[in-house]
Amino acid sequence: MNPMTQNTSPRRRRGIEEEEEDYRPRDPGAGAVMRVIVPLQGVVQGRGGVVLGSVIPCALFYLLQLYLRRHRSSSQTRPSQPGSSQPETHPPPSPQRTLSRSPSRPAFVSSRAAQVVGDSPYYLGWKAYQDDPYDAVGNPEGVIQMGLAENQLSLDLIDDWLKSHPEASSFGGADDMSLSIRGIAGYQEYYGMPDLRTAMADFMSDVMKVRFDSSRVILTAGATAAIEMLGFCLAEPGNAFLVPSPYYPGFDRDLNARAGVELVPVPCRSTDNFNVTITALERAFNQTKKKGVTVRALLITNPSNPVGNTLDSNMLTMLLVFAREKNIHLICDEVYAGSVYGSSEFTSIANVLESGEFDKSRVHIIYGASKDLGLPGLRVGVLYSYSDKIMKAAQKLTRFCSVSSQTQRLLIALLSDAEFIQKYMSENRRRLGERFNVLSEGLKNAGITCAKSNGGLFCWVAMPSFMPFFSQKGENILWENLLKEAKISVTPGSACHCIEHGWFRVCFATLSDHDTLVALQRFQKFCETYKRTSQE
Amino acid sequence: MNPMTQNTSPRRRRGIEEEEEDYRPRDPGAGAVMRVIVPLQGVVQGRGGVVLGSVIPCALFYLLQLYLRRHRSSSQTRPSQPGSSQPETHPPPSPQRTLSRSPSRPAFVSSRAAQVVGDSPYYLGWKAYQDDPYDAVGNPEGVIQMGLAENQLSLDLIDDWLKSHPEASSFGGADDMSLSIRGIAGYQEYYGMPDLRTAMADFMSDVMKVRFDSSRVILTAGATAAIEMLGFCLAEPGNAFLVPSPYYPGFDRDLNARAGVELVPVPCRSTDNFNVTITALERAFNQTKKKGVTVRALLITNPSNPVGNTLDSNMLTMLLVFAREKNIHLICDEVYAGSVYGSSEFTSIANVLESGEFDKSRVHIIYGASKDLGLPGLRVGVLYSYSDKIMKAAQKLTRFCSVSSQTQRLLIALLSDAEFIQKYMSENRRRLGERFNVLSEGLKNAGITCAKSNGGLFCWVAMPSFMPFFSQKGENILWENLLKEAKISVTPGSACHCIEHGWFRVCFATLSDHDTLVALQRFQKFCETYKRTSQE
Repeated sequence: MNPMTQNTSPRRRRGIEEEEEDYRPRDPGAGAVMRVIVPLQGVVQGRGGVVLGSVIPCALFYLLQLYLRRHRSSSQTRPSQPGSSQPETHPPPSPQRTLSRSPSRPAFVSSRAAQVVGDSPYYLGWKAYQDDPYDAVGNPEGVIQMGLAENQLSLDLIDDWLKSHPEASSFGGADDMSLSIRGIAGYQEYYGMPDLRTAMADFMSDVMKVRFDSSRVILTAGATAAIEMLGFCLAEPGNAFLVPSPYYPGFDRDLNARAGVELVPVPCRSTDNFNVTITALERAFNQTKKKGVTVRALLITNPSNPVGNTLDSNMLTMLLVFAREKNIHLICDEVYAGSVYGSSEFTSIANVLESGEFDKSRVHIIYGASKDLGLPGLRVGVLYSYSDKIMKAAQKLTRFCSVSSQTQRLLIALLSDAEFIQKYMSENRRRLGERFNVLSEGLKNAGITCAKSNGGLFCWVAMPSFMPFFSQKGENILWENLLKEAKISVTPGSACHCIEHGWFRVCFATLSDHDTLVALQRFQKFCETYKRTSQE
Repeated sequence: MNPMTQNTSPRRRRGIEEEEEDYRPRDPGAGAVMRVIVPLQGVVQGRGGVVLGSVIPCALFYLLQLYLRRHRSSSQTRPSQPGSSQPETHPPPSPQRTLSRSPSRPAFVSSRAAQVVGDSPYYLGWKAYQDDPYDAVGNPEGVIQMGLAENQLSLDLIDDWLKSHPEASSFGGADDMSLSIRGIAGYQEYYGMPDLRTAMADFMSDVMKVRFDSSRVILTAGATAAIEMLGFCLAEPGNAFLVPSPYYPGFDRDLNARAGVELVPVPCRSTDNFNVTITALERAFNQTKKKGVTVRALLITNPSNPVGNTLDSNMLTMLLVFAREKNIHLICDEVYAGSVYGSSEFTSIANVLESGEFDKSRVHIIYGASKDLGLPGLRVGVLYSYSDKIMKAAQKLTRFCSVSSQTQRLLIALLSDAEFIQKYMSENRRRLGERFNVLSEGLKNAGITCAKSNGGLFCWVAMPSFMPFFSQKGENILWENLLKEAKISVTPGSACHCIEHGWFRVCFATLSDHDTLVALQRFQKFCETYKRTSQE
C-alpha cells in the first residue's frame, strides 16, 4: 500500500464535490462559467493545442452570451423592483396573502452542520462504555473505559485541598467584593481575569521551567477552543496544517468543523518510535503545495498524544528552522507538559525560544487545566501566543469561549497556593509513572509491547499479531473484538491517522489500582484466546 | 438620504476586494481565468453584442494557453517531485541546510483575525469607562457606564440565597459523588449535565408559560456562543440573515467574525415604535436575493434590544408565515424574556408554535442566565432548537463552548429551588419597572423622550435635537460629547444599525438608586447646556 494515499485530511477525503459545495463562489453565473471552462482548458491543453484551445471556448462563449441575454430579458419582466430607491413601493401584503398556508418545505441545514454529525470509533467506544459501564461492585462485567485521556489519579489531593480551603469555592455573602457574588456575577474580560492570567503564567513557568508573561495568557473554555481559535486566526478556509501522525483524534474536528482548516498527517513510523522526521515534513509540505493547498502551520503535541514520548531541544530547534524556512506557524500543544514521569525532563518550545535565535511571533503554545490538574470539567484552556496580532484577535474571539468567573476564582485560589501545587505536581508525576509501569509490564506479560514513552496518560500499544489480517479492516475487527469480548474500550490507531496498522491508545489514569488489574486480566485472557485461535 | 444604502452588512461594506480575498477559489489559475472573463462578459454584453463577446475571449484564451504552457514547462524543471509514490526519495537535509539562518519573514495572519481587531463605539465607550470609572465616593467625577446591558438590581437576592445554601457552591470533601470534586472534575456531556438541562427547561417553562423539553436544551458558554453556533449550522459562509434594526451591536461579530454570515439590517422606524413590518422584510429579502446572496434566516430579539418593546402573538405569527413563505429559519433571541415589566405579558415564539399550524423545525430559541438571572459572568447560554438535525450538530459543536461543571452544579441547585426562583423573578421585574420609570421620567424632565418599552435593561432615547447637525457625524459628535462632557457612556444608535440618527441606548440596571440620580443630573445639565448653545 502506498503510504502517500493516507496523506489527506478528512474533509479532503469526502471528495471534491462536497468541498466545492462548501465554498462555492457567490455568483451562480460565474460558477457556471468556471465549471465549463476550467476542465475544458485541461482537455484542450492535452490534445488540441493552443488554437483549438481558443476556438472551443469561443464557440461556447457564443452560446453562453445567448443564454445570458435570454435570462436577463426574462428577469427584467419581473414585477418586483427591489433595487428601487423609492421607499414603500411594495404594496403592503393583504391579510389573505400573509396568512395563506403556503406548503412548508424543510429549511436549509449547512454543510458545516451536516458534516459534524458522524461518529468515529473514538466516540463509538465512548458510547459502548456509557451503555454498559464497568463498576467493580455494581457491574463487574461492564465495559472498562481506557479510551479517555483523563487523569483521576490525584483527585484526592485536590479534594483534600478543597476541604481545607472552603473559601476558594463558596462565595455567598463574603464582604470582600472580589470574593462575593458581585465580583463574579458580572461581565469580565472575555479572555480571563487578570489575577487568573497571572496565576496561570506563574503555574506554567513552574511546570515548564521558563518564564511566561501573563499579558500573553488568553484563557478559553478548554484547550479545544484555543486550538480552534488558532485555526481561525492562522488560516483561511481550505488552508492546511501539517500534523505529525499518529495524532490526537479530536484535532480533525477542532480545526476542520468550523475553522475549515485541512489537516495533513505527516506519517511517523514505529522504527523512529513515532518521532517526526524533517524528510517526512518536507514531503508532506511539498505534496500539499503541489495540490494547490497552502500550508499555514505545523501543529505538534509535546508530550505526544497518543505516543506519550517527548521532543528534545534538538528536535524542537529543527522544527523551528523548518517553520522559518517555510514561513509557517508552529503550534505546540503542551497540555501534558506537567505529566512527564520517570527520569526525563520536559522541554517546552518556550525554552528553545529563549536562545533568541528565532522569530517568536510564529510560535503559539496551547495549555490548560484539563490534563496536568485533572480538571477537564472546569473547561479552562490557555492560548499563549508570541504574536501580538494573533493575541489581539484571539482576545476578541474569546467572546465565544469564555471561562466561568466562578471557576476562575476557584483556580486563582488553587494555583496561588504554590506549596500545594508543587506537592501535587510532584506526587501526580510519581503516580503516573507508577501506573505506566504497572500497565506496560502487565501488557508485556500478556504479549503486547508498548512504545517508549515518558509522558501523558496512556500507553501506545502494538497488537498487530492479534489482527485477523494485516489491513485497516483487520485493525477495525481487532478493535471491535477488544470492545465486545474483552469489554475494553481503547482508541484505534486509525482514529489517530497512524500509518501502521494494529496500534492502540490505552489510557490508564481513570482507573483505580484494582480496576487496572482487572483490565490487565482481560487483556491477558484476550491475548491467550487470540494467540491460540491464530495458531490453530 | 436613501435609506437603502444602509441595508448592507459590515463585511459587505468593506468592499468587494476584501470579500474576494476571504473566499477566493483554491486554484489560482482558475481564479485568474475568472477575473478576466467575468468582467469582460459584462463589457461585451453591453456593447459589442454576441459575436464580439465571443471573439474577444477567443483571443484572450489564445494568450492564456501560451502563458499556462510556459508556466507548466518551467514548473516541470523543478528538482523536487513530491508526487512520486516512492518513499524516501528525498535526500535527508544536510545539517548545514536545516540549521542555516534563512531570512525570517512575518508569518501569515488570516483575514478572519485581521477583521476582528477593530473597535466600535460600543467598545470605545467601555474603554473610556474602564480608564476612569465613576465611583460615588472614590471617583465622583468619573465616567458612568450606561452602555452595558447587565442586571445588578437583584443580586442581593442571589447573595442571600447563596448564604443560606452554602452546599450549592462548596464541594470539597462531600460524600455524595455528584456533589464532590469527582462529580465535577471529569469530562461531562459537552452540551450540559442532564440535571441542568432539566432544571433549565423547567425554568424556561416558568418564565415563558409554555412547556420546554429538556432533551432539546443545549447549554453553551454564554448565549453568544449559541448564536454563533446557529450561524455555522444554518448558513454557508456568505449567506445572509435578516435582522430588524436597530439591533444588538454584538450580533455583527457573533455571526460574521467566524461563521461568515452576512447580517442584513431590516430598517424599522420610530413612527412604528421600531416594530418591523412585513413590507420592510419583503424588501430586504428581495434586495439581498437580487445581489446573489442567499437569505437563510430571520433573527429577531424579543423583547427587543435596544428598544425594549415586545412582539405580540399576531406579529410573531406574521414572522412565522414569512419564514415559511421564504423557506428560511426563524431565530428568536429571548434572553430578556423574564425581564418584562409593567402590566404587559411576554409571548414566546414557543407559545405561538403551540397552535400546531407551523413547521417547528425552522424555529430556534436563544436563552441564558446572563440577563434574567443577572449572571453573565457564569457564561451560561441556551440553544433550544426544534430541529433534530440542528440539535445533533449543535450538540457536537458544544465541544468549543462548554459550561464549567462547577457552574452547572451551582445553577442546578439555584434553579431547582422553585420557590426562590419565583420570588426572585417577580421582585426583579418589579425593580426593573421601577427603575425604568425613574429613568424615563427623569430624562423626560431633561427634555429627552424614550421609546415605548416594557422589557429589557435599557431605555431607547431620542436626542436628535442635541446633535450639532442631522447626520451620522452629528450623532457621533453628540455621543462623544455625552462621554466627554456629561461623562456618560451610552450606546449610539449607529452601532445598532438604527436608520434614524440621534437615538441612544441607555442601560439602567447596573447603577444604584443614588448613582441613577447622579446620571440624571448629568443628563439634565448636558441638555440645558446644549439647548442653550443651539438657541444662541
